[in-house]
Amino acid sequence: MTSMVGATALRAGLAEPLGCVTELPELASPALPGLGELVFGGHDISDITLEKKVENLVAAGVLPARPAAAVADKLDELQRELRPVPTAATQLETARLIAQDIDDFRRRRGLERVVVVNVSSTEPAPVPHPAFSSLDHLRSAMASSAVLPPSSLYAYAAFSAGCPFVDFTPSTGARLPALIALAAEAGLPYAGHDGKTGETLVKSVLAPMFALRHLRVRTWAGTNLLGGGDGANLADPAARAAKSGSKQRVLKETLGYQPQGSSHIEYVDDIGDFKTAWDLITFSGFLGTQMRMEFTWHGCDSALAAPLILDLARLTAAAHAAGRTGPLTELAFFFKDPLGDVPHGLADQWARLAAFVRGLSDV
Amino acid sequence: MTSMVGATALRAGLAEPLGCVTELPELASPALPGLGELVFGGHDISDITLEKKVENLVAAGVLPARPAAAVADKLDELQRELRPVPTAATQLETARLIAQDIDDFRRRRGLERVVVVNVSSTEPAPVPHPAFSSLDHLRSAMASSAVLPPSSLYAYAAFSAGCPFVDFTPSTGARLPALIALAAEAGLPYAGHDGKTGETLVKSVLAPMFALRHLRVRTWAGTNLLGGGDGANLADPAARAAKSGSKQRVLKETLGYQPQGSSHIEYVDDIGDFKTAWDLITFSGFLGTQMRMEFTWHGCDSALAAPLILDLARLTAAAHAAGRTGPLTELAFFFKDPLGDVPHGLADQWARLAAFVRGLSDV
Amino acid sequence: MTSMVGATALRAGLAEPLGCVTELPELASPALPGLGELVFGGHDISDITLEKKVENLVAAGVLPARPAAAVADKLDELQRELRPVPTAATQLETARLIAQDIDDFRRRRGLERVVVVNVSSTEPAPVPHPAFSSLDHLRSAMASSAVLPPSSLYAYAAFSAGCPFVDFTPSTGARLPALIALAAEAGLPYAGHDGKTGETLVKSVLAPMFALRHLRVRTWAGTNLLGGGDGANLADPAARAAKSGSKQRVLKETLGYQPQGSSHIEYVDDIGDFKTAWDLITFSGFLGTQMRMEFTWHGCDSALAAPLILDLARLTAAAHAAGRTGPLTELAFFFKDPLGDVPHGLADQWARLAAFVRGLSDV
Amino acid sequence: MTSMVGATALRAGLAEPLGCVTELPELASPALPGLGELVFGGHDISDITLEKKVENLVAAGVLPARPAAAVADKLDELQRELRPVPTAATQLETARLIAQDIDDFRRRRGLERVVVVNVSSTEPAPVPHPAFSSLDHLRSAMASSAVLPPSSLYAYAAFSAGCPFVDFTPSTGARLPALIALAAEAGLPYAGHDGKTGETLVKSVLAPMFALRHLRVRTWAGTNLLGGGDGANLADPAARAAKSGSKQRVLKETLGYQPQGSSHIEYVDDIGDFKTAWDLITFSGFLGTQMRMEFTWHGCDSALAAPLILDLARLTAAAHAAGRTGPLTELAFFFKDPLGDVPHGLADQWARLAAFVRGLSDV
Ligand SMILES: NC(=O)c1ccc[n+]([C@@H]2O[C@H](COP(=O)([O-])OP(=O)(O)OC[C@H]3O[C@@H](n4cnc5c(N)ncnc54)[C@H](O)[C@@H]3O)[C@@H](O)[C@H]2O)c1
Ligand SMILES: NC(=O)c1ccc[n+]([C@@H]2O[C@H](COP(=O)([O-])OP(=O)(O)OC[C@H]3O[C@@H](n4cnc5c(N)ncnc54)[C@H](O)[C@@H]3O)[C@@H](O)[C@H]2O)c1
Ligand SMILES: NC(=O)c1ccc[n+]([C@@H]2O[C@H](COP(=O)([O-])OP(=O)(O)OC[C@H]3O[C@@H](n4cnc5c(N)ncnc54)[C@H](O)[C@@H]3O)[C@@H](O)[C@H]2O)c1
Ligand SMILES: NC(=O)c1ccc[n+]([C@@H]2O[C@H](COP(=O)([O-])OP(=O)(O)OC[C@H]3O[C@@H](n4cnc5c(N)ncnc54)[C@H](O)[C@@H]3O)[C@@H](O)[C@H]2O)c1
Ligand code: NA
Ligand code: NA
Repeated sequence: MTSMVGATALRAGLAEPLGCVTELPELASPALPGLGELVFGGHDISDITLEKKVENLVAAGVLPARPAAAVADKLDELQRELRPVPTAATQLETARLIAQDIDDFRRRRGLERVVVVNVSSTEPAPVPHPAFSSLDHLRSAMASSAVLPPSSLYAYAAFSAGCPFVDFTPSTGARLPALIALAAEAGLPYAGHDGKTGETLVKSVLAPMFALRHLRVRTWAGTNLLGGGDGANLADPAARAAKSGSKQRVLKETLGYQPQGSSHIEYVDDIGDFKTAWDLITFSGFLGTQMRMEFTWHGCDSALAAPLILDLARLTAAAHAAGRTGPLTELAFFFKDPLGDVPHGLADQWARLAAFVRGLSDV
Repeated sequence: MTSMVGATALRAGLAEPLGCVTELPELASPALPGLGELVFGGHDISDITLEKKVENLVAAGVLPARPAAAVADKLDELQRELRPVPTAATQLETARLIAQDIDDFRRRRGLERVVVVNVSSTEPAPVPHPAFSSLDHLRSAMASSAVLPPSSLYAYAAFSAGCPFVDFTPSTGARLPALIALAAEAGLPYAGHDGKTGETLVKSVLAPMFALRHLRVRTWAGTNLLGGGDGANLADPAARAAKSGSKQRVLKETLGYQPQGSSHIEYVDDIGDFKTAWDLITFSGFLGTQMRMEFTWHGCDSALAAPLILDLARLTAAAHAAGRTGPLTELAFFFKDPLGDVPHGLADQWARLAAFVRGLSDV
Repeated sequence: MTSMVGATALRAGLAEPLGCVTELPELASPALPGLGELVFGGHDISDITLEKKVENLVAAGVLPARPAAAVADKLDELQRELRPVPTAATQLETARLIAQDIDDFRRRRGLERVVVVNVSSTEPAPVPHPAFSSLDHLRSAMASSAVLPPSSLYAYAAFSAGCPFVDFTPSTGARLPALIALAAEAGLPYAGHDGKTGETLVKSVLAPMFALRHLRVRTWAGTNLLGGGDGANLADPAARAAKSGSKQRVLKETLGYQPQGSSHIEYVDDIGDFKTAWDLITFSGFLGTQMRMEFTWHGCDSALAAPLILDLARLTAAAHAAGRTGPLTELAFFFKDPLGDVPHGLADQWARLAAFVRGLSDV
Repeated sequence: MTSMVGATALRAGLAEPLGCVTELPELASPALPGLGELVFGGHDISDITLEKKVENLVAAGVLPARPAAAVADKLDELQRELRPVPTAATQLETARLIAQDIDDFRRRRGLERVVVVNVSSTEPAPVPHPAFSSLDHLRSAMASSAVLPPSSLYAYAAFSAGCPFVDFTPSTGARLPALIALAAEAGLPYAGHDGKTGETLVKSVLAPMFALRHLRVRTWAGTNLLGGGDGANLADPAARAAKSGSKQRVLKETLGYQPQGSSHIEYVDDIGDFKTAWDLITFSGFLGTQMRMEFTWHGCDSALAAPLILDLARLTAAAHAAGRTGPLTELAFFFKDPLGDVPHGLADQWARLAAFVRGLSDV
């Protein structure tokens, strides 16, 4: 939502594109659609209007009053493209309706392509089901029971509609053999998982620092205090488990071992969208000397996530246009839990991202 | 001093080489002399014995008691190679005596080469002098007056003795046109400035993180509380000015602009060698949202610096052996204020260092 | 300024009196004038209008938009009572004009009494002058040269107009023998110095904690980053010296000794009125074990100071009404550098304040 | 254990009595037994020798090497008075054996009185049992089944042996109607619960600060990282629940309402006995302005607890000597979860403690 409002404000020249990685000179490329060329639509189970949401964000200090006011007259137009999630008797039929919606949107707005981005609430991990491993079995199962978690249903619908799929959440999404097969069949790229916006972003530069300096990290323990919708949802232990898993991977992958300590998430309504994370790192150096570092990160989740969603839409659209299929592992820079066997240090991820963008314009 | 004791302990298998970057598998190279092949000697104006210094470090919790005890019987041998700084009527003559000492040491111990590393107290910036710009003028000036600051005198002596020179301090060292000419004439490499061990190390990964994410850093203000010899010396405003300059460069170079705020240094005797640095960073993201981060670094300066000195000795020796001359800009990874027009982000510096080491063994 | 706007908002029932100590049930007393009975006026050398100042505070996030809007129509009325500082040929004459202004204000608004509160920029300590020690000498000196710093000039004028004087700044104010004599002569009370709103407030509860637990504080070092007018003014080393002095007294007084470390103040424009202070405390416990604590305080100076100014006006007015004269040492609770030989721990100061208020209504 | 070793070291003049509250001049009283008069004994289920424990504490940096070495020859004597917990067929019989042990100890060492202090691992809350409410029922139940949790069994045994009982843990201890009746019957005093050594100590001064300044605390969320035996035991959710409860009470009691956020405990083996706690506090001030504070506490639990145990032994012995019976509510200063309807702010608790000590010598 912040992405839509923000893109509208950027287009109107009301703000600088801070936080938009694809607006850095190093990633400028004719292959990327312009920020001004993006058109937004979506499905949500909530019926809170955009107007109300903007009002809330302004009150919370997330959205400055000025750009919010300036886009007020564009909200109606945006709102028209926001739909309730279709419901049907079977998941197969629901998926068909969602795909239909997407296709109508593409046609109605005269778009070259649509990128589907999942930004809905984190789901608990689904109970494994035999139908997950084959597309045929999956289709039969979907015809009779609600076998897929919502994120995977959306991935199915996106691929069915010929659209690339990006998962900004830690949910399952396209990560099922049957869906990977569907993407391959349809010749579509996909990306994920779980936007890297706060504590994990910092980890992805600090962990390599310790590794490159040959310092042994003994403990890395963190606490995330957050309110907002995501926080409320993560108060559910099952959803939280999915998220905490995402957050710890970077240490193991970057250091080569798992330090002690875990990443704790706590819901505090009053904190709202301004998350506070605190991490303690203890480490050993020369001759075993014990040292320590702590950091506090006080970031606004929406303001950090929204521009990345614009980036991912642009990059994935360009990848699609360039004929890329399968997992877009070069987008690891954006994710806590990236697809593929990729580097987890931010600098290496950046190098791969930059090469990817250069490759797009070579096509 | 911690380097010598530590290398002795490592050699005896009493500790892991934590903090030694050249012991990481990625930098393993036959071109580097083994840690066990290093032999130590030095000049100091203080006459505190090694035994006393080790005792102090153990009491301060910097040196664990076990390795300290284990090397006790090696201290005599190390002590024999530590000399008071020679004094003579003119700087030219002093330099000759220092060079003589170095040469004697090389011969006596049957060494292939000697790398001179400056780890003496930070000096104030010297008053500019016309003789700095030409080797001939410098030699005439040195024959009559004390024109060079000590660090540059040592660089002069090192080059005269045919030795590469590494400056681990923010002092002037080899950074005078006359000395650069001398190094060129003698075909010698040199490296510097100011070992990157604490707050600046963290800056060199966090600043690129903000830059790569297109987040605008508004304020970056820091406080360093430190005791120990370096702290006491930095209580002198002139010495501190040299140091603070070193510490801020990374922001300008990595971000492309200078955020508000400065880096404050305060001497607190009780803190000892365990420096505590605190930094506050405020930054703007999408639509101008204001966010903040703070970190506290609680590191033991000696334990962080000592292994780097071993690394620099090995790398510079190998560069010398490979015929490298002039500034070793590829060693920027180790310095707060690196020589040359080089990247200041740690990851880029690492890539250059790794390529440098690979290049050495290709020779 | 925030006090005036705030009091207006409180009166209109637009906000709760948070931060107002005299609104706590424990201090409720018929002897105190009601918040709604206060009437504001003042002198300032700046001619920025109230409207502009409110606008700035709202933009900075200090003043919420709602109460600001609600008092918009009251600003004119407030503005009318704000005057430029009168200027005359001699300080004696200037003081007369200021006293006249105060007297006119009292009459025009039909007030029982006026409390003069100094909230102007921190001054450097004045050069000592012989006339400071006697009222007669002072008057002669004022007739010919500008011998008093502004804060003391205002104290002189206040006392001349028969008004109690409160100094919310670390400036000299009434702290000169000649002015103390004047207050005594006029039978007036006065209070000060330097409102306790942030780091020092925290110190005044943490330092007693260490003392009561018999823990020895070794280092207490702090950094204050602040912007705003006060910050800009404190960028001047002479003004800063006055302030830092105020901030350290509490440790000596509460602990009985002065730990190592100082309190550093740095001006960072971007930080604005939201000051960030960081303190490191190291301490020794049983058998000499070394421990540490750090805290970060992120407070809005205006929001912390404004309600205290209302408190001080009410309390000082009541003291005046009750016939109190001389230093109001029972108001130490409010000050970094309180008058008299008083406790510096917050809890003890609170006990004295509560007793003082009870005493007022006994009268 | 640290108490015993420490008291021995203090007696030998090897250390200052830092952390011992009863050594402050304000609490000096002839009514208190001297530190040098205390004699130690105890029961533990572990059979790790004192020598080994001292060795571990020195290695962990908790006990400085010097006092540890100096008391080495006293360890045997101390060890002789440490016993395994007696085991018998019924709890009634076990209690009798424990009481017997205590009585033998008193006689053997020629002591005036013995104070029993529970410092064993935190227990989960027991399942309520009807026998808890009457001493007669309890005795019958104890004759056939293990109805009491260990802490309450020790309280029973202590009272049976005519000894006051202090509970330094959050376990049940004497807090059962049947045991309260037993203490009354025997005319004995008791104290508790849960020594206040770290985060809660800080809360007990910061929470009153916010209250006295009329600032509304919105969130108070904390994380405690700790290793050691207590940490390992608290990794058990049931034990942790007992502890977290203790830690939150102070906020409700001091502020008058419960802010959002909880107190999280995480076991990190590597952290050892040096606990790190981090707390975030958000609060509202004048006109609703949002502010925040954070603190990190890095304390050594043993070094903080040991002197308090000496204090409690002295104070409780003196209370017993003075004929005090029932809950010693004046000792709230020492506890996270104090007995009785008492103030939770540290300063008020101190005032009551000081009055209590003065009262003792008046007797
Ligand atoms: N905001 C960030 O910074 C950030 C960063 C990384 C990852 N994420 C992830 O993005 C997701 C969204 O986060 P958020 O902060 O925007 O949360 P949010 O609670 O504010 O928004 C989630 C939205 O998803 C909708 N929704 C829930 N279930 C749905 C369904 N089955 N179908 C369609 N819509 C549904 C909700 O109605 C709500 O509008 C979470 O998984 C979160 O972990 C967010
Ligand atoms: N230790 C670190 O972590 C670290 C990191 C980066 C840079 N540095 C730099 O390294 C230098 C040394 O730091 P340190 O912490 O070891 O300081 P230190 O005070 O412990 O040691 C400095 C030594 O230099 C000797 N010395 C002073 N003047 C001399 C001279 N003219 N000739 C010969 N010897 C002389 C002193 O006697 C002393 O033994 C400083 O410039 C410091 O800024 C240190
Ligand atoms: N705001 C706080 O939280 C706080 C807390 C404790 C103490 N103080 C003290 O209060 C004083 C004011 O602080 P502030 O933050 O409001 O500063 P500010 O810079 O915002 O305001 C100072 C005002 O004083 C006016 N001024 C300067 N010199 C004057 C003079 N000679 N006569 C009349 N007016 C004059 C300026 O024009 C300005 O309007 C400072 O001494 C500060 O140290 C403020
Ligand atoms: N150390 C502190 O700072 C501190 C502060 C407040 C409260 N406490 C409380 O004190 C208690 C002890 O803490 P610690 O850090 O010393 O823990 P610890 O694990 O180091 O020691 C606990 C001891 O109790 C013994 N024990 C366990 N069960 C027993 C039983 N049934 N009978 C006899 N002995 C038994 C264990 O063998 C062990 O020696 C805990 O409840 C803790 O919460 C400790
Ligand atoms: Na911190
Ligand atoms: Na912090």
